Amino acid sequence: MKLLEDRIRRDGECRPGDVLKVDSFLNHQIDVALLCELGKELERLYHGAGVTKILTVEASGIGIACIAAQYFGVPVVFAKKSKTSNIADDVYAAKVDSYTHGVTNTVIVSKQYLHPEDRVLIVDDFLAKGQALLGLSEIIRQAGAEIVGAGIAIEKAYQGGGDLLREQGVRVESLARIASMDPETGIQFI
Amino acid sequence: MKLLEDRIRRDGECRPGDVLKVDSFLNHQIDVALLCELGKELERLYHGAGVTKILTVEASGIGIACIAAQYFGVPVVFAKKSKTSNIADDVYAAKVDSYTHGVTNTVIVSKQYLHPEDRVLIVDDFLAKGQALLGLSEIIRQAGAEIVGAGIAIEKAYQGGGDLLREQGVRVESLARIASMDPETGIQFI
Repeated sequence: MKLLEDRIRRDGECRPGDVLKVDSFLNHQIDVALLCELGKELERLYHGAGVTKILTVEASGIGIACIAAQYFGVPVVFAKKSKTSNIADDVYAAKVDSYTHGVTNTVIVSKQYLHPEDRVLIVDDFLAKGQALLGLSEIIRQAGAEIVGAGIAIEKAYQGGGDLLREQGVRVESLARIASMDPETGIQFI
Repeated sequence: MKLLEDRIRRDGECRPGDVLKVDSFLNHQIDVALLCELGKELERLYHGAGVTKILTVEASGIGIACIAAQYFGVPVVFAKKSKTSNIADDVYAAKVDSYTHGVTNTVIVSKQYLHPEDRVLIVDDFLAKGQALLGLSEIIRQAGAEIVGAGIAIEKAYQGGGDLLREQGVRVESLARIASMDPETGIQFI
């Protein structure tokens, strides 16, 4: 999606250690007008796919998931990263290694909010090694629900997570796919 | 706001330990259509106040902040709860005690995203003892920006956080204000 690629080229910062900093518009400050365009595009891509629920994981996926959900007319469920005092014990759970933070989290979703009749679209801001998506897919499978696919803002395609999911038969639509990036040579898109 | 009060009466669960569980529509599963109505109402309340930015804190504030921000036509900044590898050292920071989770977090906002000329509306899903709002207010003060006010979905008014902020001269608009609640007698609104 040219709008997003242009924005990444303009405002994204490629940092040492394979970090793409998009804090100025995606995951610290959020350009909500941009998210609206991304949300509309995700709805266009998955139009007619019968999505009944959008699943994401806290924290930075929640904004794009909520904005996109408006265009689908469905609720959002966000997986939580740790057990809190007001979540029931009755949860689906999966382990997720966080590439950015270097930790392993358990992500959980209450069994109340995913059902076998649900057709679930996973929405997230980033896809790199695919750990978050694999965890969310696992939760959808535990619920006996159907994975319609994934809608991602930025895929670091060279890290292989997207292809891993596609090989498993999951439809993955990423609005910007990075072929390679380097602080010296910049960002190349697929 | 009657729409929200009715929803809390219908779907909120008052649990022992002073917990109001609104996981089915506000902070685990999110009824985005409801959030849109809350967002429009916040814009109506703060119409003409010259808001340039909406500030919230991860995770559950992000949804309502992003949805509301559409109606204001401004970006969202969400404070992060811990230092991650792709946040600059150059941050505003404040301590926040979490009532729900029983821990103290440091919340941080990059200095890049709040400026002295900003007029900031704080948006959050819950207001109880006011710790998150006090932390966010502190960050806005550190930035030299102006606090236009706070827009809250649910205020547990009997816990005093809202009045504490109001006594400090902060305008606080809460869409549902709970006077008292108890698993036996239910929820009373102001």
